[in-house]
Amino acid sequence: MHDPAPVLSLRDVVAALEALYPLESAADWDRVGLVAGDLDQPVRRILFALDPTLAVIDEAREWGADLLVTHHPLLLRGVHSVATSSAKGASVTALVQGGVALWVGHTNADVADPGVSTVLADALGLTDQRPLSVEGSRAAGRVGELVAAVSLAEFADTVAAALPDTAGGIRVSGDPEGLVRTVAVMGGSGDDRFDDVRASGADVYVTADLRHHPVLEAREEARGGRPYLVDAGHWATESLWLTSGRDRLLSALGEAPGATRVETRVSTIRTEPWTFVVGANAERADRAAPEPGGVS
Amino acid sequence: MHDPAPVLSLRDVVAALEALYPLESAADWDRVGLVAGDLDQPVRRILFALDPTLAVIDEAREWGADLLVTHHPLLLRGVHSVATSSAKGASVTALVQGGVALWVGHTNADVADPGVSTVLADALGLTDQRPLSVEGSRAAGRVGELVAAVSLAEFADTVAAALPDTAGGIRVSGDPEGLVRTVAVMGGSGDDRFDDVRASGADVYVTADLRHHPVLEAREEARGGRPYLVDAGHWATESLWLTSGRDRLLSALGEAPGATRVETRVSTIRTEPWTFVVGANAERADRAAPEPGGVS
Amino acid sequence: MHDPAPVLSLRDVVAALEALYPLESAADWDRVGLVAGDLDQPVRRILFALDPTLAVIDEAREWGADLLVTHHPLLLRGVHSVATSSAKGASVTALVQGGVALWVGHTNADVADPGVSTVLADALGLTDQRPLSVEGSRAAGRVGELVAAVSLAEFADTVAAALPDTAGGIRVSGDPEGLVRTVAVMGGSGDDRFDDVRASGADVYVTADLRHHPVLEAREEARGGRPYLVDAGHWATESLWLTSGRDRLLSALGEAPGATRVETRVSTIRTEPWTFVVGANAERADRAAPEPGGVS
Amino acid sequence: MHDPAPVLSLRDVVAALEALYPLESAADWDRVGLVAGDLDQPVRRILFALDPTLAVIDEAREWGADLLVTHHPLLLRGVHSVATSSAKGASVTALVQGGVALWVGHTNADVADPGVSTVLADALGLTDQRPLSVEGSRAAGRVGELVAAVSLAEFADTVAAALPDTAGGIRVSGDPEGLVRTVAVMGGSGDDRFDDVRASGADVYVTADLRHHPVLEAREEARGGRPYLVDAGHWATESLWLTSGRDRLLSALGEAPGATRVETRVSTIRTEPWTFVVGANAERADRAAPEPGGVS
Amino acid sequence: MHDPAPVLSLRDVVAALEALYPLESAADWDRVGLVAGDLDQPVRRILFALDPTLAVIDEAREWGADLLVTHHPLLLRGVHSVATSSAKGASVTALVQGGVALWVGHTNADVADPGVSTVLADALGLTDQRPLSVEGSRAAGRVGELVAAVSLAEFADTVAAALPDTAGGIRVSGDPEGLVRTVAVMGGSGDDRFDDVRASGADVYVTADLRHHPVLEAREEARGGRPYLVDAGHWATESLWLTSGRDRLLSALGEAPGATRVETRVSTIRTEPWTFVVGANAERADRAAPEPGGVS
Amino acid sequence: MHDPAPVLSLRDVVAALEALYPLESAADWDRVGLVAGDLDQPVRRILFALDPTLAVIDEAREWGADLLVTHHPLLLRGVHSVATSSAKGASVTALVQGGVALWVGHTNADVADPGVSTVLADALGLTDQRPLSVEGSRAAGRVGELVAAVSLAEFADTVAAALPDTAGGIRVSGDPEGLVRTVAVMGGSGDDRFDDVRASGADVYVTADLRHHPVLEAREEARGGRPYLVDAGHWATESLWLTSGRDRLLSALGEAPGATRVETRVSTIRTEPWTFVVGANAERADRAAPEPGGVS
Repeated sequence: MHDPAPVLSLRDVVAALEALYPLESAADWDRVGLVAGDLDQPVRRILFALDPTLAVIDEAREWGADLLVTHHPLLLRGVHSVATSSAKGASVTALVQGGVALWVGHTNADVADPGVSTVLADALGLTDQRPLSVEGSRAAGRVGELVAAVSLAEFADTVAAALPDTAGGIRVSGDPEGLVRTVAVMGGSGDDRFDDVRASGADVYVTADLRHHPVLEAREEARGGRPYLVDAGHWATESLWLTSGRDRLLSALGEAPGATRVETRVSTIRTEPWTFVVGANAERADRAAPEPGGVS
Repeated sequence: MHDPAPVLSLRDVVAALEALYPLESAADWDRVGLVAGDLDQPVRRILFALDPTLAVIDEAREWGADLLVTHHPLLLRGVHSVATSSAKGASVTALVQGGVALWVGHTNADVADPGVSTVLADALGLTDQRPLSVEGSRAAGRVGELVAAVSLAEFADTVAAALPDTAGGIRVSGDPEGLVRTVAVMGGSGDDRFDDVRASGADVYVTADLRHHPVLEAREEARGGRPYLVDAGHWATESLWLTSGRDRLLSALGEAPGATRVETRVSTIRTEPWTFVVGANAERADRAAPEPGGVS
Repeated sequence: MHDPAPVLSLRDVVAALEALYPLESAADWDRVGLVAGDLDQPVRRILFALDPTLAVIDEAREWGADLLVTHHPLLLRGVHSVATSSAKGASVTALVQGGVALWVGHTNADVADPGVSTVLADALGLTDQRPLSVEGSRAAGRVGELVAAVSLAEFADTVAAALPDTAGGIRVSGDPEGLVRTVAVMGGSGDDRFDDVRASGADVYVTADLRHHPVLEAREEARGGRPYLVDAGHWATESLWLTSGRDRLLSALGEAPGATRVETRVSTIRTEPWTFVVGANAERADRAAPEPGGVS
Repeated sequence: MHDPAPVLSLRDVVAALEALYPLESAADWDRVGLVAGDLDQPVRRILFALDPTLAVIDEAREWGADLLVTHHPLLLRGVHSVATSSAKGASVTALVQGGVALWVGHTNADVADPGVSTVLADALGLTDQRPLSVEGSRAAGRVGELVAAVSLAEFADTVAAALPDTAGGIRVSGDPEGLVRTVAVMGGSGDDRFDDVRASGADVYVTADLRHHPVLEAREEARGGRPYLVDAGHWATESLWLTSGRDRLLSALGEAPGATRVETRVSTIRTEPWTFVVGANAERADRAAPEPGGVS
Repeated sequence: MHDPAPVLSLRDVVAALEALYPLESAADWDRVGLVAGDLDQPVRRILFALDPTLAVIDEAREWGADLLVTHHPLLLRGVHSVATSSAKGASVTALVQGGVALWVGHTNADVADPGVSTVLADALGLTDQRPLSVEGSRAAGRVGELVAAVSLAEFADTVAAALPDTAGGIRVSGDPEGLVRTVAVMGGSGDDRFDDVRASGADVYVTADLRHHPVLEAREEARGGRPYLVDAGHWATESLWLTSGRDRLLSALGEAPGATRVETRVSTIRTEPWTFVVGANAERADRAAPEPGGVS
Repeated sequence: MHDPAPVLSLRDVVAALEALYPLESAADWDRVGLVAGDLDQPVRRILFALDPTLAVIDEAREWGADLLVTHHPLLLRGVHSVATSSAKGASVTALVQGGVALWVGHTNADVADPGVSTVLADALGLTDQRPLSVEGSRAAGRVGELVAAVSLAEFADTVAAALPDTAGGIRVSGDPEGLVRTVAVMGGSGDDRFDDVRASGADVYVTADLRHHPVLEAREEARGGRPYLVDAGHWATESLWLTSGRDRLLSALGEAPGATRVETRVSTIRTEPWTFVVGANAERADRAAPEPGGVS
């Protein structure tokens, strides 16, 4: 391959990424930016993935990536060892041994525009978008309108069509016949945002990682009505962003299609942890025949 | 109905419940025991349910229950108002207006023997049971052995058969062909127990409310192997306890079948919040054809 | 009684109260607003009292009040149970069973104008009033001038005449002959405000709930001189506000005397806890004859 | 005065005091022991007082005391300056300039036997005494029995007779005709001990510095009945200890009456801060004629 | 001595000092201003010293000083006793007994201009000075330029010549031949300021109290290069300020040389704690001949 | 080289190290044990050094070490990145790239016997050794006796002779003629141990990293007398331990001199950060001629 254009350095690529997703816009508790690598190393191949798992790092090494860009941090909690006995240590060691740099765009990518939640809102076809909540200069989540009101069941099918397939599927709470038009979305885990959702007037809230107690309390507060809830999976709701991030980076680097300086790929590994589901959508006889608790 | 036996007071019933599930055995952060009612009020009908939702309280009032026994606390966080504008306030008001007392057995029921996790372990047919972890005098979760090793796929079917049906179903992470014999269980949410699970040598861990990050980190730590994970639903894994609690209370009160002092019922309302699931078990083409990220 | 006017709802009355005493103006630690009741219930009778004691709630139920308005919160600390075994639980239960709503105006009533401290300052005839201290947008306490300087003994008599009688009476620290003209007041407990009082230049400070150590330190800092101190009782210094609050509410509701929509009453129950005092104002022979500690 | 006996040093006297009231038995937050002075200075005159006020320090200097022993700490909060602009600084400066050492026995004197609460319990004639509460090795307060049950009014007179006279007098909450026999006492401020008082089964609790909210909550919890409350004044309930401390010290020093090494005195200054009371025991017309809140 | 001018009071002198070094400009954790003395006492002699040690206080008493002005606080941590058993108590007692007031100018003197760091920067001949860091309104440390670049070894000699001699001498880390021109200085202890030093672009940093770990980490971060480090001693780097402070005070008091109201002296006691050093500048054979760790 | 013995794995060597210096005996805040490497990697060469600096890591790589054992942690504070832009990241990257494992024995080596402080005490010839302080099961520092009392100046020479030479030398505070016999030692930084030193009755305390304020306060508390202080340098006082640790490890591995499985070396790099000292031991004219502060 003859390549007269100068090779990009990691310094160049990181500068472009951090112009798109400034580190200062990340949440205080977050840990974003360059996690491994040397700013002077050349970058010819970049892999994008949601999570820096060992399998993803293997893919990067096998493909010959110089840089891995992920949404989720590898070292959100600081480490005191990189010995391979722990998964975190094995991951760091594999990156360094393979010469693969790692750059993370997490909450700084969430609040960007386009960012994780806007990409999700766009995929669902929401118009008239506005932030779900604003804290200081950071806008979290999106609220927007469907073109027309549809039933919750239809809306769930729309979500399924818009997102990549997963083993876990999409869990829905609410009346399948109930109509929805205003939609709130939050990529990843959002069960601490129900106050904002209620204040937004949304008919339905699409997010992930919803647990029993917060969800049940939200359903009680809704007295069984709106806002309905859709748990569309952490990986599925956020992975849409990867292509957006890749495209914006290439544009920022001035790479036209067919250019020869840097090659990119979105990982094909789905880091949703579920392998299969059994027994969903069981017929249930709620309140039909009370278990004869026993006259005793 | 002619009833020569003296009527039980709430004081009598609470004393029996707290002998079975002592309040002192609850976790420090938990809020268990009597939440509403007057110790001198008579108790003729007792309803058992996992969650004190508004629908459950309605069922209690409609049936004429004097006492509702639930596993989950109504007021885990203290309230400063019982006005009906909030769901918590509406619940308290409905209980008091309906004359329905409420007693909660939560982490004190978890650690009892038989308690929530032992009932679950028994339902899965585990033998040679021991605690998953012990903190002070409190034993959390159970570990035990299947009669024979089975594949993870077969085990998932066993779990589905042992638990009540739900809309959400059972999510599984791991090789469907992988064999499992040692099983760890923890009713309700257990994604903060992976260290204990690894230390226990379990092949598979059955619990609920598993979120992306803790699960993915546990799977990484397992390097894709054992322990596998089964998220069987918060409601499903804990609701088995209700019948056990009911039976033990009746026995403690000296109520033989056909006795006439107190009537009990296990609620038929499933407080799992999910209504339906779409798109689960999608065919996925992981790593088959890398999205042509674009040579650019 | 013919009454063509529409019945007020609790929603209407709460809206009027919170326009007069906005919830946002309460201190961070305070718990004000609606504590019991349903916004849709009708309100025909309103009782005003300083404390929501069980006796006050009985009075409300006996009189047929739909709403009790108090200055002191019932649930300043959150409760995890409303069982009648505790006084707080018994109070909540009595309110709900009696259909009596409860609304609290505490630190939001303190800082209103007219509010608790201004009503007290007015009752003492203070002119040229200004806040004792200002924190953010909250003005606490009042400082003002008597028409003419009087002796501390005369001033104490003025305070006694201006406030409702109590068993506990009014305790005074300072030279009875000392002259006072500038007066600081703080309804309720104010022994954490001595820095503000000194900065205000007040000759005497009227408040309540004064304890040995803070008072003695304040007297030491004053080197026995001004500012003098008057402990006029928590109930007495704050109860004057009840009539003001009642009148302002009626005015806000557009209720003219003789109107027929809502009936109000200020409770006659004095919730000062003291029943009687013995041995006050004993002759003391300070420093007259040193106890012969004993040449030993 | 010819004095062949060797002069005591401050070191000798402090050793004797700390054998009686070990510093280790003080509460963690407390600050007891030697506050000013040089261990090698001679001690010929010792003044005992409840509070180290400026007037008490003047008395010590005028009488020529070498050592002042007080119950209350001078420097409970650490000071960063002893400039005379503050009362604390002026007190330290006056002690040092006057050559008066200061030794404090506070919570270590509270828990001693005989200590502050036992001296108070003895003065009230309580028999069968036991601690009000025990935390670790520290016993706080006392509970005991009167020889015979008396009315609360009679008991209040007993208290008044047993304690030194004060301007503030003794405030009582409860039915004057109610009988009391079991008595809990806590010298100084005790409104954080109501749980212990209830657990003790006391009919009446004698302490001081009682404020509106804790007292009213305690009275509510008692549903208007027992335990009754008596606020007998911080100074009055604790000052009885001074003579006990003096006598025990002299005994420990081997000082017989008429001995010549050290002269002692209990201060005649009453450091209760109140000068006079007006308006106590007012006739009250509670609930007699409801203020015509106004039919409006 | 005939002195027609009125005698200055401590109040006058403190007012002048606090106009030069406002107390509000001190750090939150600092404790500055008047530590001992009476504002009404006359001041005829003022001693300046870096630390209020017992020897310095003796010097003040021997010379008849009415006021001691020091840079370091005597009571940075609050004291609960001034008994002479502790050094702090002995110091307070000696000040009060000797009638010597104490005033402290610490971080308020650091940030003044001229203040501690500017005096140090001036002594090193730095031009184009700017703050090392700015937090709110407080400017800490100074950065400036030497007239010409010199070797680190030459610079160390310059520092030694500019500062008073000490036993401890000046410790240097870096290549003796390396050139330096931009210099950062921070009087006293500055090993928590390396981030600011790096951001400033300084070639060398002069401060004191440098410990192994922070210094080694700073040297690692510098990869053995610039910024170099010079530990010139806490006492030496700060004591230069004393003359500046003295001169500014006299000027503020309107004292011309030869005036007669107040006499001043800078203490001759060097409160650097070191008495002597042995073994410095040893020849070292780093990496020359590896200790034969032993083929084993 | 013919070597029939099986090659040791990192697992073997770590097991031996942690039997000598159990991880559980480290302080809570400390971070010890394996920091980099794979337990299955072979270990043929081990380098011992006090600090894992970049130069030390280079030495390890150049020599072909498989394992670096250091006393000081590399990652005491957790890291969120190993990018080479920071020194910590560059160190981790260099270790991983070079295939050099890192094991740290810090506070677990301090409290071992023989450990850091005992090796230091032995080097000074101390007999009758006991711990300086004991907290739980951890014994910190050592106290022992010299064979005979010597002057402080002689003792400083003894320390200099016992420790490796450094640029910084040994700083001493106290009367050079004062006699010392009981000696307290604490390797590394010990200026938070003066209470223990005083309680131990030591005449002199040998440690390092002593700063102005703690030292001056300790000297004040000593009123200029004993205990004297010797700051012998952090690196010098701790580096003696390296040979001890090396020898114990070889013994534990059953390696006789001349054995062939593992080769060891103690690094020749002195990680004391100082390069040279100027101006120490200057003649000082303390108190000789007071600077004429100026009669003004």
